[in-house]
Amino acid sequence: MGATRKIDIFDTTLRDGEQSPGASMNTEEKLVIARQLLRLNVDIIEAGFPISSPGDFESVRRISELAGYDACVAALTRAVEKDIVVAADALKYAKRPRIHTGIGVSESHMRDKLHLTPDETVERGVAAVKCAKRYVDDVQFYAEDAGRSDYDFLARMIQAVVDAGATVVNIPDTTGYSLPEEFGRRIKHLMDNVRGIEDVTIAVHCHNDLGMATALALAGVANGARQIECTVNGLGERAGNTAMEEVVMAIRMHEQELDAHTDINTREFTKASRLVSTITGMNVQANKAIVGANAFAHSSGIHQDGVLKRRDTYEIIDPADVGAGESRIVLTARSGHAALKHRLEELGYSFDAEKLDELYEAFLNLADKKKEVYDEDLESLVNERDREDGALYALESVQVSCGSPLKPTATLTVRDPEGQLVTACEWGTGPVDAVYKAVDSIVRVDNDLTEFSVQSVTRGIDALGEVTVRVKAADGEMHTGRGADGDIIVSSAKAYLNALNRLMAGKR
Amino acid sequence: MGATRKIDIFDTTLRDGEQSPGASMNTEEKLVIARQLLRLNVDIIEAGFPISSPGDFESVRRISELAGYDACVAALTRAVEKDIVVAADALKYAKRPRIHTGIGVSESHMRDKLHLTPDETVERGVAAVKCAKRYVDDVQFYAEDAGRSDYDFLARMIQAVVDAGATVVNIPDTTGYSLPEEFGRRIKHLMDNVRGIEDVTIAVHCHNDLGMATALALAGVANGARQIECTVNGLGERAGNTAMEEVVMAIRMHEQELDAHTDINTREFTKASRLVSTITGMNVQANKAIVGANAFAHSSGIHQDGVLKRRDTYEIIDPADVGAGESRIVLTARSGHAALKHRLEELGYSFDAEKLDELYEAFLNLADKKKEVYDEDLESLVNERDREDGALYALESVQVSCGSPLKPTATLTVRDPEGQLVTACEWGTGPVDAVYKAVDSIVRVDNDLTEFSVQSVTRGIDALGEVTVRVKAADGEMHTGRGADGDIIVSSAKAYLNALNRLMAGKR
Repeated sequence: MGATRKIDIFDTTLRDGEQSPGASMNTEEKLVIARQLLRLNVDIIEAGFPISSPGDFESVRRISELAGYDACVAALTRAVEKDIVVAADALKYAKRPRIHTGIGVSESHMRDKLHLTPDETVERGVAAVKCAKRYVDDVQFYAEDAGRSDYDFLARMIQAVVDAGATVVNIPDTTGYSLPEEFGRRIKHLMDNVRGIEDVTIAVHCHNDLGMATALALAGVANGARQIECTVNGLGERAGNTAMEEVVMAIRMHEQELDAHTDINTREFTKASRLVSTITGMNVQANKAIVGANAFAHSSGIHQDGVLKRRDTYEIIDPADVGAGESRIVLTARSGHAALKHRLEELGYSFDAEKLDELYEAFLNLADKKKEVYDEDLESLVNERDREDGALYALESVQVSCGSPLKPTATLTVRDPEGQLVTACEWGTGPVDAVYKAVDSIVRVDNDLTEFSVQSVTRGIDALGEVTVRVKAADGEMHTGRGADGDIIVSSAKAYLNALNRLMAGKR
Repeated sequence: MGATRKIDIFDTTLRDGEQSPGASMNTEEKLVIARQLLRLNVDIIEAGFPISSPGDFESVRRISELAGYDACVAALTRAVEKDIVVAADALKYAKRPRIHTGIGVSESHMRDKLHLTPDETVERGVAAVKCAKRYVDDVQFYAEDAGRSDYDFLARMIQAVVDAGATVVNIPDTTGYSLPEEFGRRIKHLMDNVRGIEDVTIAVHCHNDLGMATALALAGVANGARQIECTVNGLGERAGNTAMEEVVMAIRMHEQELDAHTDINTREFTKASRLVSTITGMNVQANKAIVGANAFAHSSGIHQDGVLKRRDTYEIIDPADVGAGESRIVLTARSGHAALKHRLEELGYSFDAEKLDELYEAFLNLADKKKEVYDEDLESLVNERDREDGALYALESVQVSCGSPLKPTATLTVRDPEGQLVTACEWGTGPVDAVYKAVDSIVRVDNDLTEFSVQSVTRGIDALGEVTVRVKAADGEMHTGRGADGDIIVSSAKAYLNALNRLMAGKR
């Protein structure tokens, strides 16, 4: 066991994951996820792309402070000096900083996107690594679209950046279209043809466009890679990245064959999955491996019989190993201030006394309606508070009558940015439509609602309903809004206002 | 192109897919999906497990009639004579019938589940194949849990059933825990060690427990398999099966390397995905490969730039190739009876004149509220009608008032199995809770609500909201209910009543 290779887990939920359309997060949300990544014991947290926005810069800075010596913090850059300078600045307080720089290496990227010759591309890559080395020791180079690059040119590029001092070389299958075997051969070609490759770490970064991101990453590991880039729930652009929970459990099941192990605390997977879906509004399907609602559920008669006779007839992973079905601490209306504070701390939240008082009041209010308050309810409450803080428009009250045969009607009062209360009433095809029309008549901003979904975040019929909406602004930008309340019509109103607040905040 | 091997696509959405907890379908729903499978041009439809229930028997019988010469229809059995007799009976009207029989071949299955020695297991398998051959020419043998079986014993078993006349041998990785490379070696071992294997088809049936079902199936194909078992959306027990859309597109992208092609009409994938999620209530996550909402969506600045410069910098699959983003025919209040009938036929539905009149009335009612009626709306309407037909309890009217700060209150009238109208009113934490309490006070049946979700099935704020609920009966059985209406509170009431009707119908 101790004899197998240690594989580093590089989490990019906060960078590549956040690039999922509609999954953007603010700094506070990223910190909540970063705390969970530390509990998972990931080796590297990619915290953002500092030059891309002040929000990304701030996230990298604050996650650097949070992580301390517990995890390496990486910041993404293009192969451009100003990107690198800004990234180094954002990483100033990191105890274990890493700059992640790189450039496209496939013919299509060099010719159509960068307009560079292969020689110029190598030069730019080397210059970027040397520039980054002036600020940090740990420099990771990514060879974008390596999955479609020429084998020998890729080896030449990697040789050049290794010679320039790169400590990690990241080979991404950017389009997600490789076959695992072929991708494995590519990694092996580097192992066989780059001098000094044994002294650096090869990383693999795979996409799921053909549903094979996990298999691609493992093919890389089998051929010499010692770092996997991945995200919680496989979040990421298009069909997403390698899912951490899948690749880590696959390595655990095949430790000897792959000569590999990770240091991930797998019991945190279920909680991490729930947290990331709640915060990003990107739900996980029931048949998702490891963390889906049905991942360990059987229904056919044949199989049930087998499971009863002996569990490992059909299941090998013990659901408890990934934190599934764990008994979650439950609070009630009799739980005190200290119990709430303690539980929130265990969930990774810390608040000042004033904020905690506010939350305790909201908690009592909720505990009054529900008999049992679960972790998910608390997370929902905290997220709700975060959303309300600093909102341009805030919901004061809403009243709705609906049903069949009736004309759904909504009357809404909103506090506007000047602090004025504005009331409107509208009718619509349903209560949500009526509420949204009333919101529109108060907050006048062009948008298209592209998605609306409700998830009951906890068990039972009296569960808090969390609504997620995605709206598309006139400029094509997507914004996600969430709202949670025991009343799904109220949740819907809050979610829509939250999305519009974000849309308008983005514009300012 | 014509020189590559033809790979048969064996769809098991209606058998293994239906075994997803909560995804059970009635015969009408299965027929709707079977029509879509024919449009996809699958080679084999596994229509059910006839001995398991009268519903499965009926589905196999009716799908046999529907498929004609267009697809082979398979029925599952255990290696038991009575199963085979019943399956043959259900397949009576099939033009191209196949019996799919088999037995567990891993040590754990033989010892703990079957209590058979290896010799006895081979004997039982051979007897089952010979028995099936008395009824049909085309007999497929499955070696359950082959992924964990002894290489040489598996070869011995397969040799015996090939000698007994099996035309297809199915090698399932039942637990979903193999590595692709290892699974490929297993298939190669059979290709190398079974006499006459070139005259039969090796099929692979893979599960997604580690997120690698697609890669496992391809590893099988690369090593000699010529049939893939799969489901739409990767539906199936636990983390599901190989997703048809993924494996077919992967083969298309790598036709030469894999020496393989399929005859699937890929432009039907998006519609098939939507249909299966609507009918089963199993939603697909946004980052699902090929058919997820984000599968072809980019958001990062770097990538957008690349995509604009040249589409194939990041994307290779043209979204239109899988039917994504296709302009869907839109009906309006001015569309006539004939237009509706024509569109419904294109969607795979056929109705008698009376039913069509009813649907037209419901359509006009909807078109009155919405400006544009999409395919999804029509599917929703049809499904809604199906649910109402033969329901024990039917919703007559519902009125709700809710909001914040208000006490959500619901008044409900339901027609009971004796035809009596019963009214009840209740209040709750939210409008759905209030409605469900009112339903409970009329329909008194023990159950736990384990899931509640709303999806807007079409675009825009005035979309029909489809609600899916899952309830667990006192005996542990799961039942799914769905309801669709412009008013999500009405949808919620319908969905809950639908689930309870199914629960009670199951008991009778």
